[in-house]
Amino acid sequence: MKLVIKVTGKYFDDEGDKSLLPRAVRGLVERGNRVAVVTGGGSTARKYISMGRSLGLNEASLDLMGIWVSRLNAFLVAMALNDLAYGRVPESLEQFIEYWSQGKVVVTGGFQPGQSTAAVAALVAEATVADYLVIATTVEGVYDSDPRLNPEAKLLPRVTTAELKRILETSQSVKAGTYELLDPMAMKIVERSRIRVLVTNVNRLDRLTDVIKGSGIASIVEPV
Amino acid sequence: MKLVIKVTGKYFDDEGDKSLLPRAVRGLVERGNRVAVVTGGGSTARKYISMGRSLGLNEASLDLMGIWVSRLNAFLVAMALNDLAYGRVPESLEQFIEYWSQGKVVVTGGFQPGQSTAAVAALVAEATVADYLVIATTVEGVYDSDPRLNPEAKLLPRVTTAELKRILETSQSVKAGTYELLDPMAMKIVERSRIRVLVTNVNRLDRLTDVIKGSGIASIVEPV
Amino acid sequence: MKLVIKVTGKYFDDEGDKSLLPRAVRGLVERGNRVAVVTGGGSTARKYISMGRSLGLNEASLDLMGIWVSRLNAFLVAMALNDLAYGRVPESLEQFIEYWSQGKVVVTGGFQPGQSTAAVAALVAEATVADYLVIATTVEGVYDSDPRLNPEAKLLPRVTTAELKRILETSQSVKAGTYELLDPMAMKIVERSRIRVLVTNVNRLDRLTDVIKGSGIASIVEPV
Amino acid sequence: MKLVIKVTGKYFDDEGDKSLLPRAVRGLVERGNRVAVVTGGGSTARKYISMGRSLGLNEASLDLMGIWVSRLNAFLVAMALNDLAYGRVPESLEQFIEYWSQGKVVVTGGFQPGQSTAAVAALVAEATVADYLVIATTVEGVYDSDPRLNPEAKLLPRVTTAELKRILETSQSVKAGTYELLDPMAMKIVERSRIRVLVTNVNRLDRLTDVIKGSGIASIVEPV
Amino acid sequence: MKLVIKVTGKYFDDEGDKSLLPRAVRGLVERGNRVAVVTGGGSTARKYISMGRSLGLNEASLDLMGIWVSRLNAFLVAMALNDLAYGRVPESLEQFIEYWSQGKVVVTGGFQPGQSTAAVAALVAEATVADYLVIATTVEGVYDSDPRLNPEAKLLPRVTTAELKRILETSQSVKAGTYELLDPMAMKIVERSRIRVLVTNVNRLDRLTDVIKGSGIASIVEPV
Amino acid sequence: MKLVIKVTGKYFDDEGDKSLLPRAVRGLVERGNRVAVVTGGGSTARKYISMGRSLGLNEASLDLMGIWVSRLNAFLVAMALNDLAYGRVPESLEQFIEYWSQGKVVVTGGFQPGQSTAAVAALVAEATVADYLVIATTVEGVYDSDPRLNPEAKLLPRVTTAELKRILETSQSVKAGTYELLDPMAMKIVERSRIRVLVTNVNRLDRLTDVIKGSGIASIVEPV
Ligand SMILES: Nc1ncnc2c1ncn2[C@@H]1O[C@H](COP(=O)(O)OP(=O)(O)OP(=O)(O)O)[C@@H](O)[C@H]1O
Ligand SMILES: Nc1ncnc2c1ncn2[C@@H]1O[C@H](COP(=O)(O)OP(=O)(O)OP(=O)(O)O)[C@@H](O)[C@H]1O
Ligand SMILES: Nc1ncnc2c1ncn2[C@@H]1O[C@H](COP(=O)(O)OP(=O)(O)OP(=O)(O)O)[C@@H](O)[C@H]1O
Ligand SMILES: Nc1ncnc2c1ncn2[C@@H]1O[C@H](COP(=O)(O)OP(=O)(O)OP(=O)(O)O)[C@@H](O)[C@H]1O
Ligand SMILES: Nc1ncnc2c1ncn2[C@@H]1O[C@H](COP(=O)(O)OP(=O)(O)OP(=O)(O)O)[C@@H](O)[C@H]1O
Ligand SMILES: [Co+2]
Ligand SMILES: [Co+2]
Ligand SMILES: [Co+2]
Ligand SMILES: [Co+2]
Ligand SMILES: [Co+2]
Ligand SMILES: [Co+2]
Ligand SMILES: [Mg+2]
Ligand SMILES: [Mg+2]
Repeated sequence: MKLVIKVTGKYFDDEGDKSLLPRAVRGLVERGNRVAVVTGGGSTARKYISMGRSLGLNEASLDLMGIWVSRLNAFLVAMALNDLAYGRVPESLEQFIEYWSQGKVVVTGGFQPGQSTAAVAALVAEATVADYLVIATTVEGVYDSDPRLNPEAKLLPRVTTAELKRILETSQSVKAGTYELLDPMAMKIVERSRIRVLVTNVNRLDRLTDVIKGSGIASIVEPV
Repeated sequence: MKLVIKVTGKYFDDEGDKSLLPRAVRGLVERGNRVAVVTGGGSTARKYISMGRSLGLNEASLDLMGIWVSRLNAFLVAMALNDLAYGRVPESLEQFIEYWSQGKVVVTGGFQPGQSTAAVAALVAEATVADYLVIATTVEGVYDSDPRLNPEAKLLPRVTTAELKRILETSQSVKAGTYELLDPMAMKIVERSRIRVLVTNVNRLDRLTDVIKGSGIASIVEPV
Repeated sequence: MKLVIKVTGKYFDDEGDKSLLPRAVRGLVERGNRVAVVTGGGSTARKYISMGRSLGLNEASLDLMGIWVSRLNAFLVAMALNDLAYGRVPESLEQFIEYWSQGKVVVTGGFQPGQSTAAVAALVAEATVADYLVIATTVEGVYDSDPRLNPEAKLLPRVTTAELKRILETSQSVKAGTYELLDPMAMKIVERSRIRVLVTNVNRLDRLTDVIKGSGIASIVEPV
Repeated sequence: MKLVIKVTGKYFDDEGDKSLLPRAVRGLVERGNRVAVVTGGGSTARKYISMGRSLGLNEASLDLMGIWVSRLNAFLVAMALNDLAYGRVPESLEQFIEYWSQGKVVVTGGFQPGQSTAAVAALVAEATVADYLVIATTVEGVYDSDPRLNPEAKLLPRVTTAELKRILETSQSVKAGTYELLDPMAMKIVERSRIRVLVTNVNRLDRLTDVIKGSGIASIVEPV
Repeated sequence: MKLVIKVTGKYFDDEGDKSLLPRAVRGLVERGNRVAVVTGGGSTARKYISMGRSLGLNEASLDLMGIWVSRLNAFLVAMALNDLAYGRVPESLEQFIEYWSQGKVVVTGGFQPGQSTAAVAALVAEATVADYLVIATTVEGVYDSDPRLNPEAKLLPRVTTAELKRILETSQSVKAGTYELLDPMAMKIVERSRIRVLVTNVNRLDRLTDVIKGSGIASIVEPV
Repeated sequence: MKLVIKVTGKYFDDEGDKSLLPRAVRGLVERGNRVAVVTGGGSTARKYISMGRSLGLNEASLDLMGIWVSRLNAFLVAMALNDLAYGRVPESLEQFIEYWSQGKVVVTGGFQPGQSTAAVAALVAEATVADYLVIATTVEGVYDSDPRLNPEAKLLPRVTTAELKRILETSQSVKAGTYELLDPMAMKIVERSRIRVLVTNVNRLDRLTDVIKGSGIASIVEPV
């Protein structure tokens, strides 16, 4: 099975034990899966973006600050995976494809300003013809409204991309194109290549095969 | 003045005289402007995408075929500009920024699957803090409906991004995210950095300063 | 067995079914052979060279236009070969050697102005110490005169490089250094490393092992 | 005058106003100096090294984590310098030399595990034949003992490398080869190329020409 | 077992038979070891450094001359190892890590001015978590004084890094930081990562497993 | 004026004073010319080729050994030219074009196996549309027979490429395609782009403008 795992940048926010992710990936590889990992930027990214903003950087350069931090997180994971992973972080999909062709786990951060690491993960899933794109985030899956704002929000075990778009548009900030979980570009890729998306909590990564089999808490997003 | 000019890939479709573009750029540089050029893929891109599709390539790889062709067009323009242009075509915004810092015209094609060369041009305009993003296309500007389908379509000298989105959504194919002129990512960049966009016919490039001054046929798209 | 297959750029001229080549390579790899593929530029190369010429480009830059197109063809083949091929097209023999050392099929286009893709293929055959350099072209092999011009031309099952040079010089255009099939640099490489060359029709590639065993229509060129 | 300025990583620790450094560099360039900047890693580097350590990374990989963070800081400064700086951060002295040859400010972080960014700065000063290597740090200059530990420490306006070595060895932690300000490799480079070193507080960078002229608080380290 | 072998540049001084090293490496790989090789520069390096000095090059550039020659030696060895080795010489530890992750022998020369190839070898041993760093030199191991100067020097089968430092400081030139065998940076890396070092004659490389088992002439350097 | 100067590798054979070449280039640049330099490999190249041959390397790899040495010579010259030259040696014509576009002297060695550095110089002259390709060699120009073998050989102030080919073929070794001064590929480039070639002694480089004006000993090769 080919799996692309997009890990929230928040996973790298504190200095606590970070072994869950490399351990989970190792387990998946040992059970015969091919795995790509995409890491977000988290609070360090936000710190550098805020410094850049106060220095008057343009939006593209600010995005690049965040991308560099996400690559730093990717590099940390690649080094922790040791001989299992390709020893460099790709900086574009073309480099990803080159590294991936050599049979190892490839860990990547952001690729380019103007898009989220979820979009990167969708591109990677498309280019590898992955069986699943796993969004490992801070909540348990997709809810009918933002669970951070609404404690009554209900987890949806199954949701279509069309429904998800509607939920995100209503539950989130008005500013179009900035909604969370899956940004418009990620959504577009998922739809055009009919990628199966699984949203789950990053802490559940060590039981990912269960989650994929359907016996764990998560949401399946179906492209329509 | 800093100008980013996005040239339709259709400019490269036939083998006719191609000197208009390099001549126009040379003129702009000689009058003290800094210029970046972004080239589309055109019919050769479509030919390779169609070959790739019949070979079963995934969507990301198909996009890469088109990107390579757009870079071929970029390289042709760079070579024609001679000592005025940086002697290599950047393959990412990071490379663009590196090359641009050296003071020459930089000519670029596509950067990455999942986005149009209009999005590339918007990113480039953002990263260079350009005064204008010029969309040099096959029609005279933005119309109230698709001029190819509706001969009665009326040219709009001024239009907001919000209006443009509405027009494109109604006048074009239902498939979200594929509408022409400015795709959603380009639109998002234009809005977040409040980039002034000018849509005009590629044949008018030799009178671009007139067009910018307002005395030529074109449309101004205002970010809101 | 190690095989270098040079495929005529004309293979990519029309948009018809292109699956013969990847299928043939897959078959050869599955039977335990190591394979490198070199692709020509074809009519798209000629189109770009003609555009470049009308823009006043120098000969080296024109050659680069053709080289870029041959790399586009190479990339198409690499993507179609999927997990069998190295995921990037080398741009020099040094890069070829690097990629080749990783055990995959490597697909390459042109390397450098001033030489044909046949010369590239000869260099690749030399660097890999290949068992055969297969020239997969539009005719059935080497003839005693140009079969396009002379319908009476006789296919030669065996020919020495010395004889081939004499035939090409007499059967072809006077302009030295531009004769087809094997240019002087390719010829020189073939001779200095005593590479066994097999000229056959590109349509016969799916029966290449038969051709190599001698039971298919083809010409063997013997270095002397 | 050619100046290499090594900025303490601590400059980037908090999110406060960071405009002092780019403003100072801009001033120096406008007065006709050529400037290279080397940035340290600071607390973010330490955060990533600590995460890496808990993941069992080897020392070389840990150093690489710190190097990546120092490059992030370098990139921030380069983007803030805008058109004054080369638009990419070099990753080795060879790349530094390439970028430097193009006439812009070059901003660099760490180069390689096993050495401090002070060693990088010394190498850069050597390769550019700089007039001064400025160590912009958190204290006012070189003291006769560590000013952080000893509030009575006396600032030394002039000190030889031999004296500095003796001071650092006695005033600092026993673990050889880890002493601060100038590590042994930096010291060796400074001595072999007789580089003039100026240690001053990072906050004084906007008055650097005064400091160089001798009218500011700082220490001169003389190679012997 | 993972082995890093640092070969004296003097191995490449004359044009005699050079097959010992590739043969030894091949033997080690065939017995299941992973091997990295680091080559010195030798007399050709000294020739180029001397030419550079007479041209007025700075010390960093002179070091780069030597590094290039050591890479030339590395490339020779890589080509001789053929399909066993990665087909390119890394130019930094980051590149080394990338190439090493692909499972082949990696052959490297120098990385950076200001450090010896022994320091490179120590870094490589650290980054690969090698079982042994083998210093294959022109003498039989570590002596209690320089065997070139003192014919009475006694070979030390076991020596600590602390003792070695003392010996090198007394037996060698006063100029700190230039002593042979292991320079201060190499020493520091060996100590901080507690790398087991084995010093032996380059001619003994074909019996390296014996030497490692303790039944050959060599010195073990123990990090303390 | 644009000048490409191809310097014999023998210039770098001994360790004597090498300042003539950088001084001559500096002089030319100061008088407003743009200059590219191409360096040969010389005796060090031959040494490495001979070592490689005894190790069983293939011809392409042997050529690469020589190419690396020619790049070493190029790097030495680039470093000696200091701020006048681009700070890296290009490894292909595409890189040359990129570096050249930035306005500095570019110094290059070999590009690719199977061709001489004279061919590199011809390609560079073609790509830069140079006014003269200067072959700075060990003899005074083109003779009617090999001056090393025939002390009666007469210097030819003017010779066509056709005559030169005939002379080289009769006066030199039978093995086609290996004749010196200008190999077939260099000759072909010179002819197709009608490059003016000037053959002169490397020691005359400091009077190159005189030689170009016709008042120095040299031969002009006219393309026909
Ligand atoms: N309907 C919803 N269902 C689930 N989460 C939602 C919903 N609406 C908003 N969210 C918010 O989306 C957040 C996750 O998306 P976000 O883009 O922040 O990604 P992330 O996994 O944190 O990764 P990164 O930090 O790398 O961006 C959750 O914290 C949640 O509060
Ligand atoms: N309202 C509209 N106003 C203007 N053009 C429109 C409108 N609706 C649709 N179009 C179509 O948009 C086309 C231009 O966009 P398109 O994305 O094809 O870019 P392009 O300039 O041809 O560049 P490329 O070929 O590189 O994509 C026009 O040919 C026009 O038919
Ligand atoms: N004696 C000959 N025997 C065979 N073919 C010959 C001979 N003389 C000329 N040719 C011509 O050589 C052509 C093939 O060489 P050519 O260099 O065009 O390569 P190609 O295989 O078409 O590849 P590409 O298009 O990539 O250059 C044939 O179409 C044929 O007409
Ligand atoms: N004799 C001394 N004189 C001056 N500073 C000293 C002395 N001995 C120790 N130090 C310490 O050295 C520190 C500065 O060196 P350090 O290597 O930490 O560099 P830095 O400028 O903080 O840069 P970075 O954070 O990038 O490493 C000072 O904070 C000071 O406490
Ligand atoms: N105590 C000692 N024990 C062993 N060798 C010593 C000692 N003191 C000095 N040496 C000298 O060290 C030399 C080896 O170190 P050196 O740095 O020259 O490395 P190398 O193996 O020759 O590699 P390279 O030529 O690549 O630098 C020996 O030739 C020897 O004369
Ligand atoms: Co997010
Ligand atoms: Co379009
Ligand atoms: Co052809
Ligand atoms: Co410090
Ligand atoms: Co040594
Ligand atoms: Co020669
Ligand atoms: Mg070619
Ligand atoms: Mg460092």
